[in-house]
Amino acid sequence: MQERIHITDVSPRDGLQNQPAQVPTQEKLRLIRLLAEAGVRSVEATSFVSPRAVPQMADAAELVAQVHAALPDLRTSVLVPNLKGLERALAAGAREIAVVLSATETMNRKNINMGLAQAVSVSEQTLAAARGAGLRTRAYVAVAFDCPFEGATPLADVLRLAAAMYAAGADEIVIADTIGSAAPGEVKTRLRALRDVAPLERLAVHFHDTRGMGVANAWAALEAGVRRFDASVGGIGGCPFAPGAAGNLATEDLVLMAERSGFASGISLDGLLRAVDAAQAQLQRPLGGRSMAWLRRQAGSAVRVQQP
Amino acid sequence: MQERIHITDVSPRDGLQNQPAQVPTQEKLRLIRLLAEAGVRSVEATSFVSPRAVPQMADAAELVAQVHAALPDLRTSVLVPNLKGLERALAAGAREIAVVLSATETMNRKNINMGLAQAVSVSEQTLAAARGAGLRTRAYVAVAFDCPFEGATPLADVLRLAAAMYAAGADEIVIADTIGSAAPGEVKTRLRALRDVAPLERLAVHFHDTRGMGVANAWAALEAGVRRFDASVGGIGGCPFAPGAAGNLATEDLVLMAERSGFASGISLDGLLRAVDAAQAQLQRPLGGRSMAWLRRQAGSAVRVQQP
Repeated sequence: MQERIHITDVSPRDGLQNQPAQVPTQEKLRLIRLLAEAGVRSVEATSFVSPRAVPQMADAAELVAQVHAALPDLRTSVLVPNLKGLERALAAGAREIAVVLSATETMNRKNINMGLAQAVSVSEQTLAAARGAGLRTRAYVAVAFDCPFEGATPLADVLRLAAAMYAAGADEIVIADTIGSAAPGEVKTRLRALRDVAPLERLAVHFHDTRGMGVANAWAALEAGVRRFDASVGGIGGCPFAPGAAGNLATEDLVLMAERSGFASGISLDGLLRAVDAAQAQLQRPLGGRSMAWLRRQAGSAVRVQQP
Repeated sequence: MQERIHITDVSPRDGLQNQPAQVPTQEKLRLIRLLAEAGVRSVEATSFVSPRAVPQMADAAELVAQVHAALPDLRTSVLVPNLKGLERALAAGAREIAVVLSATETMNRKNINMGLAQAVSVSEQTLAAARGAGLRTRAYVAVAFDCPFEGATPLADVLRLAAAMYAAGADEIVIADTIGSAAPGEVKTRLRALRDVAPLERLAVHFHDTRGMGVANAWAALEAGVRRFDASVGGIGGCPFAPGAAGNLATEDLVLMAERSGFASGISLDGLLRAVDAAQAQLQRPLGGRSMAWLRRQAGSAVRVQQP
C-alpha cells in the first residue's frame, strides 16, 4: 500500500501573477481544467489582491465562479492579503483561502506595507473570519529560510509564526522557501523543529527551484514526514516582490520523483505535459521543470513511471 | 567541525568522451588544472580504451604524463577496460585506475562485448594486477539501478557485484546510475543494502541528471552515509553506449547543495565557474548544472555559499 502525497498546483496563481503577459480568464480556466484532468485535486487559482498591484489577478471573482461551475470537485483556494480581500473572496463564493505571512520585518513591509507584528495580527483576523464563514484555510509562512532583504531567517521566528498560524486554526501551514535558497540539510532541520509546533499532517512545503535544489528539498521534506506540497506545472512562477526568486518546483519533477520513490500522487505525467503545452502556448515561451527534456523524449510512448 | 565530502570530477573522461568535438590534449590539461585550482583533489582524467572505439581518448598516455608533471598532488585516475588497457596505463605511469563492471548481461555485451560472468572475471584480474603494481583502484558497478536494455537491475545482482569488487580489493566501489533513472527512494534503499556488503567509506556514487534528480539522489546518498561522489563540472557527460543517458550530476550543483547542507567540499564555486567557462569555450555550447543561472547571477559579487 503506497503512501499518498497531496499536491496543490499553484501555477494559476504563483505562476501567472509574475508573467508579463495578461492571461485571459478562459485560458486560466483551461489550464486549471487540464490540471484537474491530469489528476491534480487542489489548485491555488488566483489572488484577491489589489488589481492595481497585480493586474494579472483582476479577474479573480470571475475565475472563481467559472472554476466552481466547471470543476465542482476540485479544491480551489485563493490568496487573500487581508480582510478586504477575504470579503471579495467570500462574495465570489470562495471555499478555501490562503493568507501570506512573511517571517521577516522587511519582507512584510515590501510585500504588504506592514510590519511583522501587524502582519501576524492581520493574518490571524483573516483566518478567524474565514473559519467563521466555514472556509478551509491555508497560511503561508513566507521567506521561511532566507529573506532577500534580511538574509537568513532565524528558525525561532519561523517556529513562532507557524505556531501562531496553527493556533489561529489554519488547516495547512505552508512553509515557503520564497527565494529558492534552501538546501536539503536546512529543510530537514527546520521541518524537524516545525513538527514540534504543529502536527505533521497540517504542514505543507512550497519550494522554488532557483538554485536547482527544489527536488532535493522535496525529498528532504518527504523524509521528514511531510506529505503536502505546493508545486507549479512547468515550473512557472516566482514572487514579484522577492528579488532573485525563480520558478517554483515543477509539479512534473515532484510527481516523477515521488512516484519513483514509492509514493502515490494520483497525477498523470502525460496529463501534466498537456497542461505544460497549454501554458507554453499561452505564455509564448518554453516551460518545464528539470525532467522536461526527458519527459518529452518519453511522450508518445506514453510517460510511464516505473515503480522501484 | 564540518564533515568532509570527497568529489572525483569525471568531466575530463566521462564528460569529454561523449563530445562530437575532439578536444586537444592541452585543453584537457587546462580543464584539469582549473579543476585543481578550484580545489578539486581527484579527477578521472582519461580512459585507456581502444582509440578506435573512443577516439576522443587516443591521447590518454600523453595526457597522464602531462597531468602528473603539472599537478603532482592531484589524484588522477584513468579508466581501463581490461588487462591490455592496464598495461598501457602502467606504461604511461598511471597511479590510479578504474574498471567498469556493468550489472547486467546485455549492458556488458553492448559495452565491452563480453557476458557478465566474463566481465566480472576481467575486472577481478585487472584489479588484482593493478593492486600488484601498487596502484589505487576504483571499480564501477554500472547500470546499478536500471539498464537501458534490461530495465530495472535486480538489487541482488548489484549487491553480489559490489561484494565481488570489494573482495577483489577495490579501494572505491562506485555505484553508478549510468542512465540517470534513479530516484532518491531507490538510492536510499540500495545504499542501505550496499552498506552491508562493503564498508561505507569504500562506497562512492555516480549519478547522471537525465531526469533532474541528480541533486536529490546525492542528498539521499549523503543521508545514507556516503561521502564519496563522482560529478562532472558543468554537467557535461553521458555514456556513449547507454541510450538516453544525459549529462552527469554537475560538480557545482553537488558542491552548492552539500556546502549549504553543512558539509565541506574544499571546492570553490567561483573556481568551478572558471572551469565551466573554459569547457564552454572549448566545446562551443552552453554548459552548466541546474544551479548555473543562479551562480552566473552571483558571479562578480563572488559566489558565496552561506552556511545554514
